[in-house]
Amino acid sequence: MQKGNLLNISKFVAPEVIFGLGAMSQVGESAVRLGIKRAFLVSDEGVINAGWVERALIYLKEVGISSHVWFELTTNPKDFEVAKGAAQYLESGCDGIIAVGGGSPIDVAKAIAILATNGGQIKDYEGVNKIISPLPPMVIVTTTGGSGAEVSQFSMIVEKARQVKMAIISKSLIPDIAIVDPLILQTKSARLTAATGVDALSHAIEAYVSLAATPLTDIHALAAIRLITENLRESVACTTNLQAKASMAMASLQAGLAFSNAILGATHAMTHQVDGLLDLHHGETNGILLPYIMQYNMISCGEKFANIAEAMGVHSAGIGKWKLAEKGIEAVRKLFRDIGIPERLSQVGMKEDYIKMLSVNAVKDACLVTNPRDTTADDIEELYRKAL
Amino acid sequence: MQKGNLLNISKFVAPEVIFGLGAMSQVGESAVRLGIKRAFLVSDEGVINAGWVERALIYLKEVGISSHVWFELTTNPKDFEVAKGAAQYLESGCDGIIAVGGGSPIDVAKAIAILATNGGQIKDYEGVNKIISPLPPMVIVTTTGGSGAEVSQFSMIVEKARQVKMAIISKSLIPDIAIVDPLILQTKSARLTAATGVDALSHAIEAYVSLAATPLTDIHALAAIRLITENLRESVACTTNLQAKASMAMASLQAGLAFSNAILGATHAMTHQVDGLLDLHHGETNGILLPYIMQYNMISCGEKFANIAEAMGVHSAGIGKWKLAEKGIEAVRKLFRDIGIPERLSQVGMKEDYIKMLSVNAVKDACLVTNPRDTTADDIEELYRKAL
Repeated sequence: MQKGNLLNISKFVAPEVIFGLGAMSQVGESAVRLGIKRAFLVSDEGVINAGWVERALIYLKEVGISSHVWFELTTNPKDFEVAKGAAQYLESGCDGIIAVGGGSPIDVAKAIAILATNGGQIKDYEGVNKIISPLPPMVIVTTTGGSGAEVSQFSMIVEKARQVKMAIISKSLIPDIAIVDPLILQTKSARLTAATGVDALSHAIEAYVSLAATPLTDIHALAAIRLITENLRESVACTTNLQAKASMAMASLQAGLAFSNAILGATHAMTHQVDGLLDLHHGETNGILLPYIMQYNMISCGEKFANIAEAMGVHSAGIGKWKLAEKGIEAVRKLFRDIGIPERLSQVGMKEDYIKMLSVNAVKDACLVTNPRDTTADDIEELYRKAL
Repeated sequence: MQKGNLLNISKFVAPEVIFGLGAMSQVGESAVRLGIKRAFLVSDEGVINAGWVERALIYLKEVGISSHVWFELTTNPKDFEVAKGAAQYLESGCDGIIAVGGGSPIDVAKAIAILATNGGQIKDYEGVNKIISPLPPMVIVTTTGGSGAEVSQFSMIVEKARQVKMAIISKSLIPDIAIVDPLILQTKSARLTAATGVDALSHAIEAYVSLAATPLTDIHALAAIRLITENLRESVACTTNLQAKASMAMASLQAGLAFSNAILGATHAMTHQVDGLLDLHHGETNGILLPYIMQYNMISCGEKFANIAEAMGVHSAGIGKWKLAEKGIEAVRKLFRDIGIPERLSQVGMKEDYIKMLSVNAVKDACLVTNPRDTTADDIEELYRKAL
C-alpha cells in the first residue's frame, strides 16, 4: 500500500454483489427488488446454447417477471448492434435490463441502457462522464471469469466506421446488482477460460500500477493477482474443478472492482485498437501485450512491480526491488505460456502496416491517461513493434 | 482466505465512498447528485464546536442547498431523541439527510430516515430487514476513525424503557454516499481516538471470525487489523500525525465494509447491553470485552485466529496455530494497554448485580447469531464475570 495515496481524495464505487455457487438463482428476486416487471434480457448464442438463459428465464418467471430475450451481437460488439438493441428495448415494453453473459453481452446491455434513456448514438458517449439521465435498472449475471464488466463503470463498443473500440466510462454504468455464479464457468472452453483469466490479470496489474490507484483498489488488485497465480492454470486444465473456477470468478470480480475505480493503462489502450481492427479475443491480445508494457512501465514504480512479483508467488528473500520486478514479469510470461496464450501479435494476424494507425488511435484512448509512465505515439509504435 | 467460503452464496454491499484529506469539500456536490435541495443536517455539539458543521454548511450553500441543522442527541442515542428528530425532519421541508459526525449522529440520521418514510416508532424496526419503504437520500460525513457507520447497514439506538441498545439492520441503511476526511480526526481527543480505534479493531476481528464472513469481507477485515496495529498508537499519541489519522480512517472504513457485510459477534452483543445500561463509550466497553471473547471463540476457528495474530504483527515462523492464536490475543491486550483502555468492567461502573439481566438480553442481540462459537446466556454470564 502506497502511504501517500491515503492523503489524496479518491472515490470508490461498487454495485451490490451476489457471489457463489448457484447465485444465479437470485436473479428473479434481484429484479423484483429493483422494481422490474418486464425484463430485456441480453445474452449471446454461446450462453443460450449452454442453457443459462433458459435457467434465468425460469427464475424470472417464478417471481412473475416476463422477459424479452435479445442476443444479436458479436464478440467486440459493434455500434450498429447496440442501436438495434436499443430500438428493440424501446419497442419491447421492458422496464429493466438483465444481462446473462460475458464481457460482450454485458457491455452491450450497458450501451442499450444508455440509449434507452439518453437517446442519440452510442459514439456520443465515448470518453468519461457523458451520460446525463439515469439508466433503467440493471442486473448483470456474468458468465466469464475475466471481464469484470459486472462491476465496472466501463462499456467497450467498436465504432465500425473508424474500426476503433470506444471506451465509455461513467458511474452510471455500474449495474445495480452483479451476480457472479462460478457454476456457469464450467461450460466455457479451455481457450476462453485462458483468455478471460488473462484479461482479469491485465485488469489487476494495470489497475495496481495506475496513476489513479487508491488503497482500496490496491487490496483488490493484489488479491486478484494472488488468486489468478494460484488458480488460472488449474481452471484452464479442468472444466469440473469448481474450486479453481470459484477462485477465478472471485479474482475477476476483485480485478473488476480495482480497475473500475483505478482505471487501466497502456496495455488496454493498445489492445482496444487491435481488437477494433482484427476482432480478436480481447484477453489474448492483452496477454500478448502485457509483459512488454510491464517492462516499459517498470521504471515508473519499481516497488509496485516488486509487490506484483510477490503476489505472483516469486520468492523475495534477499532479492532487490528491480530484480524482483523483473522476476514478476517473467512469472507473468511463464503463466501465459503454460496456458497457451500466443506470444507475438503476428501470430494473431497483426501486420507491420497497421502499427502507425493503431498507435495514433491508442494515444487517444481514455485508458492511457492513467498509465504510470508518460507514453507518446512513438513509444506505442515501438511497443507494438516489439510485440509483433 | 477460507477456500470453502467461495462456494457459498454471499452478498456484499457498499456505498459510494469518497476518501481523503479535504474530502469533506465534496459534500455539496454529493448532495446535488442525489437531488437534495434542502438538507436535514444531523450532528452533535462537539462536532459543531470543532467548526465542521459550519464548514459543511458553506459547501452546501455554494451549490444552492439550504440546510436545517439538528443536533439534539446524546452518546448512545435514545429512541425519544430519534422521534423528536423525525418530527423535526417532517416539519422542516427537507428532502434529504446529511450526517456530519461520529457513530451517534450517523446512527440517529439513519433512524430519522427510517421514520421519515416508514412512520411508526424506531423500536418497530429492531432486528433484520424490517424497513419497507425506500429512505430519503443520505450523505454521511464521518468524523471518527472507528464507528464504520458511514458504510454499514446498522443503526444502534437505545430503547430507554428497556435500557437496551437495539440493533437495526437493513441494506436500506447504507447511505448513498460516505465521505471520509481524515483531516476531521485531528480535532478528536486522545481518549476518543483510542476508543474509536478500539471499536474499529473490534469490528474487524469480529467480522473476520464471523459465521457470515466471505472472501471479500476477509480482505477488508485483515487490511483493517494491519492498519490499526501499525497506526493506532501513533494516532492516539499525536493530534497532528496526519499519516496515522488517514490510516486509521482507512482502517475504520475497511472494518466497516467488513462488519456491515459479515455482521459481528459476542463482543458487540455483550457491549450493546453494557452501553444501554451504563451509557459508556462503546469503544471502551468493546476494548474491555474483546480479549475475553477472543479467548472464548478461539477454539472455533484456530486458523483464523492465527491469521489475526499475523495481521497484528506477531512473528509466526516456527510457531504452531494455537500458540500463534494465543499470541494474537496478547498483542490485542498489549495494544489496548498502550493506549490506556481500561482492563476490567468494574473500572467503568459495572456491578455483579447487573450480569444476570445483561446476559439474558445479550443472547437476544442480533449480533450473536454470527458468533463463531455457540453461546448461551450462561456462557455470556461467565464471560461478563471474567471481565468484571
